[in-house]
Amino acid sequence: MKADKISELTTNRLSIYLRCLNELAHEGRKTVSSDRLAKRFHLNSAQIRKDLACFGEFGVRGVGYYIEDLREQIIRILGLDHHHRVGIVGAGRLGAALTDYYGFRQTNFEVAALFDADPEKIGSVVSDVKVFDVKDFSKVRKNEGIDVAVIAVPAEYAQKVLEMIVDAGVKAVMNFAPTPLLADDDVKLKTIDLTISLESLSYFLARPGKNGRE
Amino acid sequence: MKADKISELTTNRLSIYLRCLNELAHEGRKTVSSDRLAKRFHLNSAQIRKDLACFGEFGVRGVGYYIEDLREQIIRILGLDHHHRVGIVGAGRLGAALTDYYGFRQTNFEVAALFDADPEKIGSVVSDVKVFDVKDFSKVRKNEGIDVAVIAVPAEYAQKVLEMIVDAGVKAVMNFAPTPLLADDDVKLKTIDLTISLESLSYFLARPGKNGRE
Repeated sequence: MKADKISELTTNRLSIYLRCLNELAHEGRKTVSSDRLAKRFHLNSAQIRKDLACFGEFGVRGVGYYIEDLREQIIRILGLDHHHRVGIVGAGRLGAALTDYYGFRQTNFEVAALFDADPEKIGSVVSDVKVFDVKDFSKVRKNEGIDVAVIAVPAEYAQKVLEMIVDAGVKAVMNFAPTPLLADDDVKLKTIDLTISLESLSYFLARPGKNGRE
Repeated sequence: MKADKISELTTNRLSIYLRCLNELAHEGRKTVSSDRLAKRFHLNSAQIRKDLACFGEFGVRGVGYYIEDLREQIIRILGLDHHHRVGIVGAGRLGAALTDYYGFRQTNFEVAALFDADPEKIGSVVSDVKVFDVKDFSKVRKNEGIDVAVIAVPAEYAQKVLEMIVDAGVKAVMNFAPTPLLADDDVKLKTIDLTISLESLSYFLARPGKNGRE
């Protein structure tokens, strides 16, 4: 399986296919063609066939793909057959919302611990998840088997928090602080920058011709 | 100003440049070269010059760019000189966290209202923002001058909520429900899919060679 070089755009599409296949499986369907998948979920059928062919999935002429097999294949490719333990640094509103976020539960990512520096929060429990002292991050990471960290602290602390996380041995990080961070090549860092998304909406609303402005 | 056709990748970069310029302005700097900007913030100096040249900004030989002028130019391009009023549909943890989100305040986006269907939440106040009955969305949208909506409801309600939002005349939408939505061409829809981001982290952690697995 030539999975080494697939781009993030491709893995993102695989995530979408998986979600669609889950829905079809839930409806009791056993097979689906790329055309039907495309039509139903507003995707590109040629792209679907191309992406799946990369993984040796060519479908069966006249039938399409076997949904259950394809689901399992994509789950394996995305590493979702492995359970991941998440540590969220920052137990404010955002950290608490992420703890709750149903997406975490659906994808084999389990929030194992929250971390904060605020004595009022340390020791409390949020949605069944305990808030630890951020000073104990390294120790708790080992004890809890945390392999993914989420940064949910204000921008000015984010780089320091990232360094702490990486020092403790975590290789996969999701950053919600609206600031570019610097990480080593062996660490996978994803920044979810809501400010940038808002600003692209702002650009759209301001475009000449859209609102009659010059 | 050839601003019509710039891609979202470009507007995203402009957002980043703006953030960097804000930081430099805060430090009291008056000018900056593309090389220095690139070096300090881990950007690509050739890309910076190319992006800014699109907007007629060529810098001054030996000096670079005037920070204040450039900031104002980018703010205008991104439409950030206009105040935006945001309506968040879904007053659960995620909606509440977004109401709090400092990114909103920094970019001239003000959360004007929250909406929910839960009688327990309707009429309550979250971070100084009132929770309205979602049935009154259209009316409140007009009264409050809402021009951007955020979807923070579970996946199964998202498409219906989007349709309600669009019917009420809102053209810019941020969607947090992990499901692809269908919108008309004149509506700008941004989906922030945390599940897809998690799965790309999962793929990274599962890659052969990284963890010694085949």
